Amino acid sequence: MKFKVERLKINYKTLEEFKKFKQYGRQELSMLEDLEANIIDNDSESPFYGIYFGDRLVARMSLYQIDAQFNRYFDPPKDYLELWKLEVLPDYQGKGYGKTLVDFAKSFSLPIKTNGRINSSDFWASMSFTPATYEVERDRGENPFIWYPEGVHEQLHS
Amino acid sequence: MKFKVERLKINYKTLEEFKKFKQYGRQELSMLEDLEANIIDNDSESPFYGIYFGDRLVARMSLYQIDAQFNRYFDPPKDYLELWKLEVLPDYQGKGYGKTLVDFAKSFSLPIKTNGRINSSDFWASMSFTPATYEVERDRGENPFIWYPEGVHEQLHS
Repeated sequence: MKFKVERLKINYKTLEEFKKFKQYGRQELSMLEDLEANIIDNDSESPFYGIYFGDRLVARMSLYQIDAQFNRYFDPPKDYLELWKLEVLPDYQGKGYGKTLVDFAKSFSLPIKTNGRINSSDFWASMSFTPATYEVERDRGENPFIWYPEGVHEQLHS
Repeated sequence: MKFKVERLKINYKTLEEFKKFKQYGRQELSMLEDLEANIIDNDSESPFYGIYFGDRLVARMSLYQIDAQFNRYFDPPKDYLELWKLEVLPDYQGKGYGKTLVDFAKSFSLPIKTNGRINSSDFWASMSFTPATYEVERDRGENPFIWYPEGVHEQLHS
């Protein structure tokens, strides 16, 4: 692997880096509030993974293991990973940072589900993700793309 | 109410109108596939509501009643509404179409949850929605904003 993926610790420096990413939202604001209120310690582990170029965070994603009991996508219904906020800063796009992060996620050998942004289907297809069969009760406004490791299939509902 | 909100029937005309909206994704593609495969009838009811200006659909949202057993936002944990894909076409923004749709959603007197887009917090605040306390297990990468009718409060988790 050309780039080194690191699990991001939550501290003021990381949260300052996060502000450069478009998908900065309630999740990051909540981490900042918890840090300020001493609810979480400086350098707590987070669900974020990222790649640094020098001392600059240039790519990140959030990755979270979902318990089997909530698995409505995969058969057999074991634990799976939900991937979100995959983003590479504009000056660093097209160099393989995004693929490196997705490959890292695949290295756990668990099924992966993500909510693809509009017009991202070519990217996810190139990562061997396929669109899940859309179900309004489950997916609401999402565009679910899923990746199956060996031996895993889509969970079908009537 | 200045504008008339209609529940949108699914047919080729509606789906053609939907293509003008930025948030066109798996949900709409799935409806198109179902229509083409005769899995759903022409003019089936959909979770979409919209406002026409003449014969042009200029604003829409999706609204879906979530069963109480899946309620992890509101106390008491009864049925609530999930609102998504609220969007007004660019030439029609700032005229009250968005507010009319949100007011329509509120008229059911059920609690409402939405996933706010980045930088939408001023809009949701003006609609009397408040940010939910972020929880990674529940909210993943979402920015949940919620609206409480009389007598309903946030569901608190330890």
